[in-house]
Amino acid sequence: MIKVGVVGGTGYTGVELLRLLVNHPDVELHVITSRAEAGRPVADLFPNLRGFTSLEFSMPDDAGLEQCELVFFATPNGIAMTMVPRLLEAGVRVIDLAADFRLGSAEDWEQWYGMPHACPEYLEQAVYGLTEVNREAVAAARLVANPGCYPTAVQLGMLPLLEAGVIDAGHIVADAKSGVSGAGRKAVTGTLLCEASENFKAYGVDGHRHLPEIRQGLERVTGQPVGLTFVPHLTPMIRGIHATLYARLTGKAADLQDIFEARYRDEAFVDVLPAGSHPETRSVRGANHCRIAVHRPQQADTVVVLSVIDNLVKGAAGQAIQNMNVMFAFPEQAGLTGAALLP
Amino acid sequence: MIKVGVVGGTGYTGVELLRLLVNHPDVELHVITSRAEAGRPVADLFPNLRGFTSLEFSMPDDAGLEQCELVFFATPNGIAMTMVPRLLEAGVRVIDLAADFRLGSAEDWEQWYGMPHACPEYLEQAVYGLTEVNREAVAAARLVANPGCYPTAVQLGMLPLLEAGVIDAGHIVADAKSGVSGAGRKAVTGTLLCEASENFKAYGVDGHRHLPEIRQGLERVTGQPVGLTFVPHLTPMIRGIHATLYARLTGKAADLQDIFEARYRDEAFVDVLPAGSHPETRSVRGANHCRIAVHRPQQADTVVVLSVIDNLVKGAAGQAIQNMNVMFAFPEQAGLTGAALLP
Amino acid sequence: MIKVGVVGGTGYTGVELLRLLVNHPDVELHVITSRAEAGRPVADLFPNLRGFTSLEFSMPDDAGLEQCELVFFATPNGIAMTMVPRLLEAGVRVIDLAADFRLGSAEDWEQWYGMPHACPEYLEQAVYGLTEVNREAVAAARLVANPGCYPTAVQLGMLPLLEAGVIDAGHIVADAKSGVSGAGRKAVTGTLLCEASENFKAYGVDGHRHLPEIRQGLERVTGQPVGLTFVPHLTPMIRGIHATLYARLTGKAADLQDIFEARYRDEAFVDVLPAGSHPETRSVRGANHCRIAVHRPQQADTVVVLSVIDNLVKGAAGQAIQNMNVMFAFPEQAGLTGAALLP
Amino acid sequence: MIKVGVVGGTGYTGVELLRLLVNHPDVELHVITSRAEAGRPVADLFPNLRGFTSLEFSMPDDAGLEQCELVFFATPNGIAMTMVPRLLEAGVRVIDLAADFRLGSAEDWEQWYGMPHACPEYLEQAVYGLTEVNREAVAAARLVANPGCYPTAVQLGMLPLLEAGVIDAGHIVADAKSGVSGAGRKAVTGTLLCEASENFKAYGVDGHRHLPEIRQGLERVTGQPVGLTFVPHLTPMIRGIHATLYARLTGKAADLQDIFEARYRDEAFVDVLPAGSHPETRSVRGANHCRIAVHRPQQADTVVVLSVIDNLVKGAAGQAIQNMNVMFAFPEQAGLTGAALLP
Repeated sequence: MIKVGVVGGTGYTGVELLRLLVNHPDVELHVITSRAEAGRPVADLFPNLRGFTSLEFSMPDDAGLEQCELVFFATPNGIAMTMVPRLLEAGVRVIDLAADFRLGSAEDWEQWYGMPHACPEYLEQAVYGLTEVNREAVAAARLVANPGCYPTAVQLGMLPLLEAGVIDAGHIVADAKSGVSGAGRKAVTGTLLCEASENFKAYGVDGHRHLPEIRQGLERVTGQPVGLTFVPHLTPMIRGIHATLYARLTGKAADLQDIFEARYRDEAFVDVLPAGSHPETRSVRGANHCRIAVHRPQQADTVVVLSVIDNLVKGAAGQAIQNMNVMFAFPEQAGLTGAALLP
Repeated sequence: MIKVGVVGGTGYTGVELLRLLVNHPDVELHVITSRAEAGRPVADLFPNLRGFTSLEFSMPDDAGLEQCELVFFATPNGIAMTMVPRLLEAGVRVIDLAADFRLGSAEDWEQWYGMPHACPEYLEQAVYGLTEVNREAVAAARLVANPGCYPTAVQLGMLPLLEAGVIDAGHIVADAKSGVSGAGRKAVTGTLLCEASENFKAYGVDGHRHLPEIRQGLERVTGQPVGLTFVPHLTPMIRGIHATLYARLTGKAADLQDIFEARYRDEAFVDVLPAGSHPETRSVRGANHCRIAVHRPQQADTVVVLSVIDNLVKGAAGQAIQNMNVMFAFPEQAGLTGAALLP
Repeated sequence: MIKVGVVGGTGYTGVELLRLLVNHPDVELHVITSRAEAGRPVADLFPNLRGFTSLEFSMPDDAGLEQCELVFFATPNGIAMTMVPRLLEAGVRVIDLAADFRLGSAEDWEQWYGMPHACPEYLEQAVYGLTEVNREAVAAARLVANPGCYPTAVQLGMLPLLEAGVIDAGHIVADAKSGVSGAGRKAVTGTLLCEASENFKAYGVDGHRHLPEIRQGLERVTGQPVGLTFVPHLTPMIRGIHATLYARLTGKAADLQDIFEARYRDEAFVDVLPAGSHPETRSVRGANHCRIAVHRPQQADTVVVLSVIDNLVKGAAGQAIQNMNVMFAFPEQAGLTGAALLP
Repeated sequence: MIKVGVVGGTGYTGVELLRLLVNHPDVELHVITSRAEAGRPVADLFPNLRGFTSLEFSMPDDAGLEQCELVFFATPNGIAMTMVPRLLEAGVRVIDLAADFRLGSAEDWEQWYGMPHACPEYLEQAVYGLTEVNREAVAAARLVANPGCYPTAVQLGMLPLLEAGVIDAGHIVADAKSGVSGAGRKAVTGTLLCEASENFKAYGVDGHRHLPEIRQGLERVTGQPVGLTFVPHLTPMIRGIHATLYARLTGKAADLQDIFEARYRDEAFVDVLPAGSHPETRSVRGANHCRIAVHRPQQADTVVVLSVIDNLVKGAAGQAIQNMNVMFAFPEQAGLTGAALLP
């Protein structure tokens, strides 16, 4: 049983983290901070938690974060980097669900996030928390950068092919579709029900912040430059990411289904579907699974990978808890045993 | 640990039962039957269960249902009554999630369900499984008639007022709204996304099968005839029932908030919200809770009660498990500890 | 052909007004104002209008509103009342789609809208624009207060019964459900897709601003106090209002279906459905119709009326155009001939 | 004014055709057939048409189709081909909204549609009704094969680039997303609200019937084989298609924005958005427009085209009316002047 704190628990990532943590067998939820909601019972803001926690939001300063063994940041980008050094020095381990520590290069980070990085010297020690890739490093990490939602779905879908060396890494297309919760709980016109419902659109075609994160992850595998076209789309639903990935086969003979099954055989949270399948986002709603199918239409030279996750779970809070489990040597599935809610 | 069987696990009530049972600490899921899907892995039909169960659907006849301590029926109306007597005689206890044993009067049943009842002699021993009303009888029951979804939301909302004797029982209005999953998984035009989405309508205004069930429940409390106008509506969402209940206060001085809080103080699954609240269906999505608020607008003589449940959980599978827990002396919340999925 | 101006064309009522006006045969759209969007092409904000208008938003002050024969206000409550007197004095006729002139009593208005009224002396000359009730007064009006969305659906549903004197006016229940567009285009958390989708809730049970408006309309018909319980609900869809109305029959013999058919026989926009029907909101999506059905369940003494409109059309922009047509002696259906979009 | 008949008016394409035809200034709707609904008023099945037409469905045999100048087929695939020859011989012109005459090769047709073609000798004279490509041939046609919904969105998006010769035609990716109405009004489990809502999935990755149709259209432009990977997806909304198209630039210098603007400058129904735009499906809901944007992310060698239509309008009924207008020398926009319904 460890003491856990959450900084910034008022967004969708935050409430999802709380939903999962209140039932985690090895966790005592010690403190939840929010400047805006300090003093308000958590269950007042999130009525699904009535009866599950009596905590109130507290100010980040009063919060006794340093008494925790682990602190999650579920804050907007740019907050964690101002608080993490002090916590690490106090011996607290940290999982940042925002983007502050995801890119290895401070220069890249500053370009894509449009602000100076407050502690670039920590970028190197931060472990990129795609558990299926970095499990050992996560276990030892003091600071984990939890991956973005799109990057999780895209990397889990592409890595087996890149590791096997069977595709042209210079021209990968990632056409990704996200539910609206990926845009957060902030009040903006574009994500009102009347704007986003019964509507479908692409956005950020000329450059989305998850592009460098995905590219970095793929390049770490290939050891060479990766050419990636990444187009995110907004889908009229609450949860779920569906990544449809396209790459050119290099001709090397390969059983694509085998490649995926072999890569993920021992992974509890990555499920390779039978050949010919089409994963549905609802099959992972509320669950920490990534479900993947691989196709080679008309036996031509283009491979198509379909990869689905719940953006708030495997794409955020669930993966963070998976990383916590690895860091503290809990069973990797602890607190993540629920089946997806269907229908 | 008891052996449990499910008859008819291919509808929404069935898959929800499975989702909850696979994680129940005291249950071994022994057999799931479906004539139509016999031989097919359950997780193939319901991909959210991949990794949670390796069971296949089996024919009801081969099923070894008699080896179970408890069998749930998640079948269409009219099936359970043909199989229940044999199971009861074999010493198996039964919870029927359909309507076969909900009405005390065979005559009423035959009128509203339009077919002869196959075993009217069992109606008397069937216990109506609204746990918060009949807990002791449920504990001892061999056969539990699990309440309908609307009847659960409406009765939990009205009973405190009737028990306290503060309203005119002759003129109650129950305006109820249900998500589309209440209509089941059967392929019919009316519940296609393109028919039911972006649309709102009433149905069955001139007589819905849940009317006699609700009336019976209310009359058992008052001991006198109840006048009920019940209007169900179809709401463009998957899960959730919101019942808005109207009744005339009789003038007897009463603190309405107190009445509700006192009635449900010891109930784990009924949550009385603070005065002035408006419960949301999403606050119970996937959870077994009923959340209730009571209002007296403009301090006039009409009381308004708002009552929400997840029709598939407290309105079906969850309440069935709650009843199972009571029947087998498990902790009443066993297997029902998850918080609602929000957003 | 008249010159028309729109003040505040950036909300949902505004864009709906524009959608209808750009195809109206007798209207030249002369000016659209918006402080926030001045200088921006209308079709840039509302891409559905690309190719339909080349107008830009202009500042209210520069707008040449006084050159128009008619100005619509599609502004938040409290704006029109500051500008209307000057326009009326300049000989411009006005239709206010907001609430500024809907209540006859300034005192009531100030209580419910929480601000002083800027020109209470105009309340008396304002004609309440429920066309089917006040057609003659509308024709002669200089200033029309266009009804609210709920009030339109509820009054059209209740008036025939009150006019016929067959119900107890002291205890009417109006349980009303609205799509989210009724809440407007303002960025607030509560109407984000992730908050309002897959969710159903009541709001304002203890007092909604449309309550006094509805009560006033009903009392003008009965000439006596009306007891009304009005409960609005938020429904997870974009457009549509469904009002379910309950009243006690007084015993006077009456053919309810006849009462409705007789009342609306000559109305182009009110459609009384055959006995036993359940109107759907989608049957009026984008159209100016109100469709109504009347029921007497179990032949008991409670009458149930179902009334549906599109809140943005018959509940706002469409009724405003209907009123304009009456004011300027255009055919009442001019510009309103489109059939509802289904599916 | 021409007499028009509709065969098979009970699906979504049919009701959309009716919605548009009842307001077309040059059309008299003479007959609507449906075996299943013969004798039933159209407005009873589709309540949005109450007050717009008093027609009843009739049997195809009695229908007086031969008295029409034009007959639309809105039937399932395989019906039109059995009736068209007789109508053509009787001098009636035909627009088939199904797929019977879309492919030039009977062999291809039989392979993809899984049945023998009833009149392969008519395939050659059928004009493929993508109006923006074949306007002159459509004007003279006796038989028009109205394009599929995906093929319309994809071809309009890719043709300018292929005509300009600036992309590698051997490796085109079309990632397309459709609202559920594309699957029709037939009662099947997969398109129930509870299955298709709050869900996103690909389907038909290994081969969809629109693949050969799109490829044929593109090859007619290039005069050489086209390599196309086409992946359709089901999106949780009623209407709309969003095609995201990817191709490799061949290096030939080209201003992509110019190419699109020049190609569609004179087209009333194809709208090229300003550079940097992201078209939304709702901007064409209920309207006959295709809105397109072209991007070149990071100035790399992959071009991305975004193309949106309403699948039931420009992807079906609207384009059929556009073709009728061309065939009968009506103004091309007649009956298609409505702006999209937003929100």
